[in-house]
Amino acid sequence: MSMDSNLTFLKLGGSLITEKDKPRTPRAKIIQQIAWEIREALREIPNLRLIIGHGSGSFGHATAKKYRTREGVYTLEDWYGFVHVWYDARALNQLVIDALFSAGLPVIAFPPSAITFREGKKVQIATQLIQIAIEKGLIPVVQGDVIFDLDQGGTILSTEEVFAELSFHLRPQRILLAGVEEGVWADFPLRHSLVTEISEDTIKSENIQISGSIATDVTGGMAEKVKSMLDLCQRVPGLEVWIFNGLKKGNVLNALRGFPMGTKILSRNS
Amino acid sequence: MSMDSNLTFLKLGGSLITEKDKPRTPRAKIIQQIAWEIREALREIPNLRLIIGHGSGSFGHATAKKYRTREGVYTLEDWYGFVHVWYDARALNQLVIDALFSAGLPVIAFPPSAITFREGKKVQIATQLIQIAIEKGLIPVVQGDVIFDLDQGGTILSTEEVFAELSFHLRPQRILLAGVEEGVWADFPLRHSLVTEISEDTIKSENIQISGSIATDVTGGMAEKVKSMLDLCQRVPGLEVWIFNGLKKGNVLNALRGFPMGTKILSRNS
Repeated sequence: MSMDSNLTFLKLGGSLITEKDKPRTPRAKIIQQIAWEIREALREIPNLRLIIGHGSGSFGHATAKKYRTREGVYTLEDWYGFVHVWYDARALNQLVIDALFSAGLPVIAFPPSAITFREGKKVQIATQLIQIAIEKGLIPVVQGDVIFDLDQGGTILSTEEVFAELSFHLRPQRILLAGVEEGVWADFPLRHSLVTEISEDTIKSENIQISGSIATDVTGGMAEKVKSMLDLCQRVPGLEVWIFNGLKKGNVLNALRGFPMGTKILSRNS
Repeated sequence: MSMDSNLTFLKLGGSLITEKDKPRTPRAKIIQQIAWEIREALREIPNLRLIIGHGSGSFGHATAKKYRTREGVYTLEDWYGFVHVWYDARALNQLVIDALFSAGLPVIAFPPSAITFREGKKVQIATQLIQIAIEKGLIPVVQGDVIFDLDQGGTILSTEEVFAELSFHLRPQRILLAGVEEGVWADFPLRHSLVTEISEDTIKSENIQISGSIATDVTGGMAEKVKSMLDLCQRVPGLEVWIFNGLKKGNVLNALRGFPMGTKILSRNS
């Protein structure tokens, strides 16, 4: 299948859709608001094709950290942790699905735990049914999730890692990462100077320091995110990644419309 | 992988776990009761390996019937129906998962919509991760679900059909179908004469009439069920299918213990 150029991946960050410091507390109004903005975007741009992903926030991360699931799953207790992380992530997924479906969006979930595994550094993901779902006009929903790992039993795959794998197969035009920051700050945590564009060139020429996010995240903070997305942009020519603030009303809609915002990551300066 | 002989598939029928005549009404106490019986069975028989499946009952069937999803998915409205059936089935799945997880069972869901598709009469199912889950001591949960169909867009796959496909790959010893009838009645709806064993031999020699179930079921009633399971037993040597009443307290536990009950379907008279 050759994808058309309107394929966009939209991630709703765990910090955006949950109260990150309160266990298992969703931000229901934010999720609902974003669901309606996605709906409006699809009304305006009927040929827009979407995959939606979301983080685990205060649902999955605390359990994942407690059981160190990302570092491997070996003992009976580790496997209990694996299932617990899965269950927590799924609980949030259910809330997101509820909101998206209620807004009239034709969503269908593809839990990474059911379609993905890792062997060594290689992640395998079954993309065929996701491709078919997109062709039929549906919106596949993925998430940060536990996955089986042929070497270390199990691990955790972040939404960005799922997106990265899907990108190699589906060649999206843009990946939109909606979080709680305006974008990437050059002076985090002061937040005076926003980096509007990051490429291999700017990284080298301006010697930008990318700082981590405040809350601990088992799948890495902002610095890790930028590095991995920059790497992805090298490997998927033409891809752009936007990091922006999803808390501000209208931002998700405007990002889907293509209005510039936040920080853009691309393979080279355009 | 060669499965050990303790692999059992347990289906919780849609009529058993929902009020079939009241839309989207679960039988929460029954689900909880059964979850605890499964937990007890695993305590008694630590090497018991399980896959749990469940029907959609009053969650999925009404919508599936309205949109005739099983007969193919073509128009925009059909696809809306497809997503709606998926959403309803998933809502019940979430309740079942909640009950099983709360009882301490290491469950992980493999939604057929994400791992299965049909092409012509052939159903393809990705079994690798389900196999790994079982090897790791987890309990995969499947369900009646919508699936993509390469010829007719989409369709519905019943739990029995999912089990049938999995049986070819995983070679379970027994398939336990817990419903609301004591088993297969020779004189339904009078219910005086229970058929305790059905095989190709008994069907031929006794000329048993298998009557349908009362409530309309988009995936076929009892007669259809028996025919398909009898066929499955021919194709998977050594497999036994038990149809029994899951409403009666202790029955699921006793079935998992191997105590005879209900109607047994097997390839030939033992």
